[in-house]
Amino acid sequence: MIEDLDASMRIRGIDGIVGYGESTLADPDLTYVVGGTLARGGFYFKKCGNRPLLVVSNLDYGSAKRLGKVKSVQTLTQWRYEMIQKKHPEGYDAAARLVATILRHEGVRGKVVLFGRNDLAKALRFVHSLNRLGVQTVGERSPTLVETARDTKQADELQHLREVAARTGRVVEYVAQSLRNAKEKRGHLQLRHQRATIGLVKSIIASKLAGEGLLAPEGTIFAIGPSGADPHNAGIPTAEIKKGKLIVFDIFPQAESGYWSDLTRTFLLGRADSKARKMYEAVENAQADALDYLRAGVTGESSMHRACDVIEGAGFPTVRRIYSGRATNIASGFIHSLGHGVGLTIGESPYLSFNGRPALKAGEVVTVEPGVYLPGYGGVRIEDTVLIKSKGIESLTHVEKELELT
Amino acid sequence: MIEDLDASMRIRGIDGIVGYGESTLADPDLTYVVGGTLARGGFYFKKCGNRPLLVVSNLDYGSAKRLGKVKSVQTLTQWRYEMIQKKHPEGYDAAARLVATILRHEGVRGKVVLFGRNDLAKALRFVHSLNRLGVQTVGERSPTLVETARDTKQADELQHLREVAARTGRVVEYVAQSLRNAKEKRGHLQLRHQRATIGLVKSIIASKLAGEGLLAPEGTIFAIGPSGADPHNAGIPTAEIKKGKLIVFDIFPQAESGYWSDLTRTFLLGRADSKARKMYEAVENAQADALDYLRAGVTGESSMHRACDVIEGAGFPTVRRIYSGRATNIASGFIHSLGHGVGLTIGESPYLSFNGRPALKAGEVVTVEPGVYLPGYGGVRIEDTVLIKSKGIESLTHVEKELELT
Repeated sequence: MIEDLDASMRIRGIDGIVGYGESTLADPDLTYVVGGTLARGGFYFKKCGNRPLLVVSNLDYGSAKRLGKVKSVQTLTQWRYEMIQKKHPEGYDAAARLVATILRHEGVRGKVVLFGRNDLAKALRFVHSLNRLGVQTVGERSPTLVETARDTKQADELQHLREVAARTGRVVEYVAQSLRNAKEKRGHLQLRHQRATIGLVKSIIASKLAGEGLLAPEGTIFAIGPSGADPHNAGIPTAEIKKGKLIVFDIFPQAESGYWSDLTRTFLLGRADSKARKMYEAVENAQADALDYLRAGVTGESSMHRACDVIEGAGFPTVRRIYSGRATNIASGFIHSLGHGVGLTIGESPYLSFNGRPALKAGEVVTVEPGVYLPGYGGVRIEDTVLIKSKGIESLTHVEKELELT
Repeated sequence: MIEDLDASMRIRGIDGIVGYGESTLADPDLTYVVGGTLARGGFYFKKCGNRPLLVVSNLDYGSAKRLGKVKSVQTLTQWRYEMIQKKHPEGYDAAARLVATILRHEGVRGKVVLFGRNDLAKALRFVHSLNRLGVQTVGERSPTLVETARDTKQADELQHLREVAARTGRVVEYVAQSLRNAKEKRGHLQLRHQRATIGLVKSIIASKLAGEGLLAPEGTIFAIGPSGADPHNAGIPTAEIKKGKLIVFDIFPQAESGYWSDLTRTFLLGRADSKARKMYEAVENAQADALDYLRAGVTGESSMHRACDVIEGAGFPTVRRIYSGRATNIASGFIHSLGHGVGLTIGESPYLSFNGRPALKAGEVVTVEPGVYLPGYGGVRIEDTVLIKSKGIESLTHVEKELELT
């Protein structure tokens, strides 16, 4: 949580942090500290132990105040930025002078961490100017100060995450309902009087996403049959929906709040064969076990081992073979990790994987998404986004899990 | 164009450039050099005078080859990256070792420019590690090497820009047609059997954008009456569409290719009053004059002066008052610039503004968007995206301009 910043800064010996960017778009750290979206970005300052200061363009002053995350908002004009620019028109020199002046004013004298997604070619010039002005910048390992703060979510963030999860759920339910209404005509399934192709379903998904005010900048996976066996195959637009074929529907949209949700359902039209049913059962059991097991204090690593136990117990290989050195590659079975953090990005710490060493903390939000894949046949993955609590989890996803859409 | 990189590197005394990122998403420079989208990003290397090298994860190897922009694609595994990571698990140390090794292998010994949008906290650690390994990194002013290359568009880029402009045009035409079909019922305009609010129109826009495979991550402006007088007002969702009120419809979506388009039309339902007609005529004339004037060799600055001439001639104030020191602020009339570059971002050089000093070059793509605003009444802006050619322009936007939708 953002309140953890001071403690982390003290531990790391950091006197001040400065975040900046020309926009908050696609910049999770800057979005986080300012509390939302600012069209023209801005400069965020915080001295260890003090309250932060946000300096933005005149045009974004009202928006920054409305976001309310930073109480002290000032404008670039108040710091005479236009005058500084006139005097120092070269590249990032003006910005460096502005930042050095404000840091001095805020009493920052020690090490300074910079953050925010910026083009390195220009940023390195800015840093060089800052250093010449006496600002002592230092780099950070991952997880950085802001990443660490972002890890556990506060009430307002959870509200955003619940909201985007609910909207995402409505998209999935709407698509499932549309598929249930598909009609067979001359040997082809039809949706909305057209042949039921993946492309058509994707356009239905896109419209419904738009209607829910969601964006899916990284796409949506809707893959049928053998394509579903490759977790990175987003689906072949010309492929037709056919009865009895497994469909992996993995959707990961972002709301205007900046928060994401991640949800996968696997289903098929008509009747499942015994192979599909066996895969589905293994994945369903692994997920149920994980949802039951996860809570603050357990590690991502141990949850991953348990998921492998369940899936291996059902007769499928798992990625543990690689981890334990018994294989160098694995193409079938459970071939990825159990989950990852979700927040202002769609993939962040903590990781429910063999690398997930630290104990999970209350307030973390993660996906739980075991899967089983059979090349040439298809895949099954079931994924919910859940909140880690001290005594268990609370699922943010509320969508039925059923293999056969009837 | 990307072929200009070598010449620019020689002029600036740069021996090598390295672009990197964990994804190409929201990273125009990295998207540009790799020629499209790579889910896990990668490392791009180029020694001055030599062909580039792209190093990506195993999972993205196929995608990188298909993009075809960089002929020489290798995988991280070929460079034993997993082994380096095992030996140097701390933060960005492994990445720095990989990059230093490849730079040495490519024969880069002099100054190196880094580019790509990355979080500064971690990037500064990476740069520090690189410097300790003997890599001499330098920062850049704007426009950077890659920004300069991106400025003039090549055939494949123009194809993407034409495509996104055509799709954007279809969205605008569809919305205009929907508005033409609005019915009056008990004193309120109705669309699709609902009251015709801005919110409803925005959901129609969103669905159509989705159907065209477009994203609008920075939103869409659809502002009626007085809200249209503020170019930053995106429109009030609860406001109703009323006859005779000016509507500013400014849409700036991005296609999956990464390229954007920018298009504004101003119209109203029913009959325009003389004030609206006078504003519209001034803007239409200023745009026609600019489209006629623009070509390679003229400056953005001179095109801006001409637009001000036309609009002042029609009796409206312009931003030239500030530029010439006769005012410090201006709220009505032509209060912004004439245009800006469009490509892998929605706002880049060249600028058709008083700061647009360099002569325009063939292959640049810019918006031409004069506007006139009357606070308390409304705004008019007309905007096309056009390609600068040696003997004039070619408009990428093909959408009717008509004030009255009938």
